[in-house]
Amino acid sequence: MSETSTATGRCWVGFDLGGTKMLAAITDEKFHPIVRKRRKTHSEEDNSTGMGRVISTIEKALEEGGISKDRLAGIGIGCPGMLDLDKGIVVEAANLGWENEPVQDKLEKAFGCPAVILNDVDAGVYGEYRLGAAKGARTVLGVFPGTGVGGGLVYEGTIFRGKNFSCLEVGHMQAIPDGPRCACGRLGCLEAVSSRLAIAAASAQAVFRGHAPILAQLAGSDLANIRSGVLAEAVKKGDKVIEQIIRDAANHIGTAIGGLVHLLAPDVVVLGGGLVEAMPELYVEQVSIAAKKWVRPTYAKTYEIVATKLGDDASALGAAAWAEATFANK
Amino acid sequence: MSETSTATGRCWVGFDLGGTKMLAAITDEKFHPIVRKRRKTHSEEDNSTGMGRVISTIEKALEEGGISKDRLAGIGIGCPGMLDLDKGIVVEAANLGWENEPVQDKLEKAFGCPAVILNDVDAGVYGEYRLGAAKGARTVLGVFPGTGVGGGLVYEGTIFRGKNFSCLEVGHMQAIPDGPRCACGRLGCLEAVSSRLAIAAASAQAVFRGHAPILAQLAGSDLANIRSGVLAEAVKKGDKVIEQIIRDAANHIGTAIGGLVHLLAPDVVVLGGGLVEAMPELYVEQVSIAAKKWVRPTYAKTYEIVATKLGDDASALGAAAWAEATFANK
Repeated sequence: MSETSTATGRCWVGFDLGGTKMLAAITDEKFHPIVRKRRKTHSEEDNSTGMGRVISTIEKALEEGGISKDRLAGIGIGCPGMLDLDKGIVVEAANLGWENEPVQDKLEKAFGCPAVILNDVDAGVYGEYRLGAAKGARTVLGVFPGTGVGGGLVYEGTIFRGKNFSCLEVGHMQAIPDGPRCACGRLGCLEAVSSRLAIAAASAQAVFRGHAPILAQLAGSDLANIRSGVLAEAVKKGDKVIEQIIRDAANHIGTAIGGLVHLLAPDVVVLGGGLVEAMPELYVEQVSIAAKKWVRPTYAKTYEIVATKLGDDASALGAAAWAEATFANK
Repeated sequence: MSETSTATGRCWVGFDLGGTKMLAAITDEKFHPIVRKRRKTHSEEDNSTGMGRVISTIEKALEEGGISKDRLAGIGIGCPGMLDLDKGIVVEAANLGWENEPVQDKLEKAFGCPAVILNDVDAGVYGEYRLGAAKGARTVLGVFPGTGVGGGLVYEGTIFRGKNFSCLEVGHMQAIPDGPRCACGRLGCLEAVSSRLAIAAASAQAVFRGHAPILAQLAGSDLANIRSGVLAEAVKKGDKVIEQIIRDAANHIGTAIGGLVHLLAPDVVVLGGGLVEAMPELYVEQVSIAAKKWVRPTYAKTYEIVATKLGDDASALGAAAWAEATFANK
């Protein structure tokens, strides 16, 4: 798949380190993927085994693409959990089982080029800003409903962040005072009423009650089987109760986005993540309806809501582009 | 009051244009006020009469301070309503009765120095960042409960803004789904449950029911008389029901701030506005309690909540400092 024009040019590595899978993409100078390599993440492994897996995944991608290390201009890696962005350390990532892992340092030593870490959702939003559905916008708000509900903000070309933290934790905004209990321990977080897990839990009840015959056939009532793809299939085949459950969840996302429009004045709101990739039209439609109800008239025409263009590639390609933004002037 | 050292130095004009009053401050190069001039705003006047009043207020301040126009380095003016920040126009300000007023242009012509407009709350938050309670912080969130509930954000030294807009409309975040009707027409906005007007309405009911004997004596049950100062006095003299009403309102502010801590990762949250100036300890205490309940443990030690230091001067001095930031490199 390697193009002739890039066979000797500089390359970037973009890496998406997720709780269940990881993706390495080697790109040309314009961030077109030359080769991709996917592997499972094993959260039961310790730091160094897991980090070894990251490194070997990049090595295999380079091998498959016939790309030598000395062509690498830099590496960007989107990571979950709490990060020390300036030191390049994953401080704590519960779903990786990692603590105080010096990711940047290890990548730089392994590949002999500069590396930078960033939050995985930020990477996705930045990817959409540089290469996807929000190209060139002044302020991009990204909301990614999945197992949780992630958020990110690109403001005037850079990723909005805290002193030592990523931020934009949209999933832990309050959606319903004293609402359902969230994984974080509080009541009524947006995540508790609109994540894939919340949708799956409501859907499993519908299956159990006999109100969702199609989903019952496709997945049964086990939450572990009720994933985004199967939910989309049940809606497509006519499970009206499941569709309503998803639209209710999308309404909560939309109301939250409506509030964020007055706070952050985004030009573009990008929706991404597994649920949106499986049902982009439904999500854009329902989220837009709910946001519009909440947005004040003066802001009505200041923003648009769109679905991800890069899909599964967003975080990896965004991380590669962020590496360029970080190292281009150094 | 003019210091010898500034008698021939450069001066800045900071202006706070409010719905009920206006304040011009002439400052030295370090933004110490040399002279202040306050006047009432008359919202029943048309644009040009109102703008004439702004100009004559600055002229009188210069006169009182014995400062000639040629010493002016620039003018910053904090304005309410919808602004075109780049063109320096007040597009619409309902409580001034203004439409499409070219404020920047008129000030530059009248005083022969550069002028810049900004949102009045942004000016206050920027003032606290440069000169007050949030000096030098990386990210400053300001929340100013008053007749409404204003918000502003200073991020890495500059005011966070939309393309053509100010933003950070904290008052129109959703506090209670389907809660009380807000002035903006929607249900359950933060402003509808925590502004001075909301507090005054609840307090008037308490007076009418005979539950607030001290406030009854001080102000009666007319909303127009139940202002921040009189509320503070009633609390101080022991009206427990009034104190609880104010604490309930502060709780809503605190919960909203708790959510914003995860979104924006502020180092410092500054509380200002009439209610906070009248009861700074009560507000900082109650808002902190409510915010802490909502903030995730990982963010618990990343922020502090403080009361305004500049008080009534915040917007005028912030506007002057913003003029310097805008013109210093031009």
